[in-house]
Amino acid sequence: MIQKKLAGEKAAEFVEDGMIVGLGSGSTVYYTIQKLGELVKNGLHIKGVSTSSRTSSLAASLGIQLVSLNEVEKIDLTIDGADEVDRNFNGIKGGGGALLFEKMVAKASAKNIWVVDQSKRVNALGSFPLPVEVIPFGYTHVNKALQERGFKPVLRTENGEPFQTDSHHYILDIHTGSIDDPHALHQWLKSLTGVVETGLFIDIADAVIVGEKQTASIVTK
Amino acid sequence: MIQKKLAGEKAAEFVEDGMIVGLGSGSTVYYTIQKLGELVKNGLHIKGVSTSSRTSSLAASLGIQLVSLNEVEKIDLTIDGADEVDRNFNGIKGGGGALLFEKMVAKASAKNIWVVDQSKRVNALGSFPLPVEVIPFGYTHVNKALQERGFKPVLRTENGEPFQTDSHHYILDIHTGSIDDPHALHQWLKSLTGVVETGLFIDIADAVIVGEKQTASIVTK
Repeated sequence: MIQKKLAGEKAAEFVEDGMIVGLGSGSTVYYTIQKLGELVKNGLHIKGVSTSSRTSSLAASLGIQLVSLNEVEKIDLTIDGADEVDRNFNGIKGGGGALLFEKMVAKASAKNIWVVDQSKRVNALGSFPLPVEVIPFGYTHVNKALQERGFKPVLRTENGEPFQTDSHHYILDIHTGSIDDPHALHQWLKSLTGVVETGLFIDIADAVIVGEKQTASIVTK
Repeated sequence: MIQKKLAGEKAAEFVEDGMIVGLGSGSTVYYTIQKLGELVKNGLHIKGVSTSSRTSSLAASLGIQLVSLNEVEKIDLTIDGADEVDRNFNGIKGGGGALLFEKMVAKASAKNIWVVDQSKRVNALGSFPLPVEVIPFGYTHVNKALQERGFKPVLRTENGEPFQTDSHHYILDIHTGSIDDPHALHQWLKSLTGVVETGLFIDIADAVIVGEKQTASIVTK
């Protein structure tokens, strides 16, 4: 908890007056958004671009002005969490289910900072199940293709029903084991008809803020 | 009209008792479905897998039993239309907006027959605007990437609002000119974050039935 808070709050220091800021989703960036809410109350002017309905609610409750991704030309800085991040700053995201909007926002951003606690840093990606966002229509056939590749896909559920993303898609969590070539895996997955996006975020993060026991350290490339 | 009817009805001859049949969408396959409705009334047993809400309504009104793509392991034969088809049986589909479900159904099918009138046959794809299905969230950024590539994207509209597919996505119709390498173009488009599917149907059709003035001819590879 304290690690997440330290990392999340540290990231808010990179937000400057007048910026358009991408607001990620999840339990670490929660603290960033809380901190930004405080700063906004004290006079900081920013516009936020949200990556999930949950983040929209949180930001609105704190008085952070929101604009949609479609309304902006470019985002200055996006702060988001990650479920795993490797030494090359590639990551797996989507444990919370917001991967599609998160990736759209990240790709529109001049700079991306990820906030994580130490447990998320790995030598190679793939221990964390990789979320694959699929359309509900015919998803069983995508599931079969993933099974045949040996990835043991599991349809994500919520209250006994298929979990639905903010785009009304499903998520298949796949078990890849250690991922040797994240690029190739992403490309193969994305090429399947019915796959909308994958949780592999490659060449996106510019810096990672890691929450430790008593401090947060900034790692850059 | 008569060309579409000749081609559409001809395709029904390939449907055998007991088959699971993929039912495409559009003005030519309309006649196939009408014909199948007649045959079902006369005792033919088939199960249909629909590719659009419009086709579902039509098939149901004719007494054709429908099952969802998720319920079947495999489809025996799919009959669908196309907006353009070249000499290699590659095509552009999606003028009616059902490209995503059509491609899902096609890929799950042991055999695919396309029904077209003569005007749809081309030497090279690309005169017909190529539909690209995108998520509404941040679609302006996909639009920008397509503009930068020189494709003059146009957001498809209906009654002054963005047209929504059966999956609640948008469609950007792009103007490519003659497409030299359909594979490469499809891969590039699909790799963009926010792109769900493209209207390029490559290596899918096994046979094309072409409606002519007084007959329908079957073209196979």
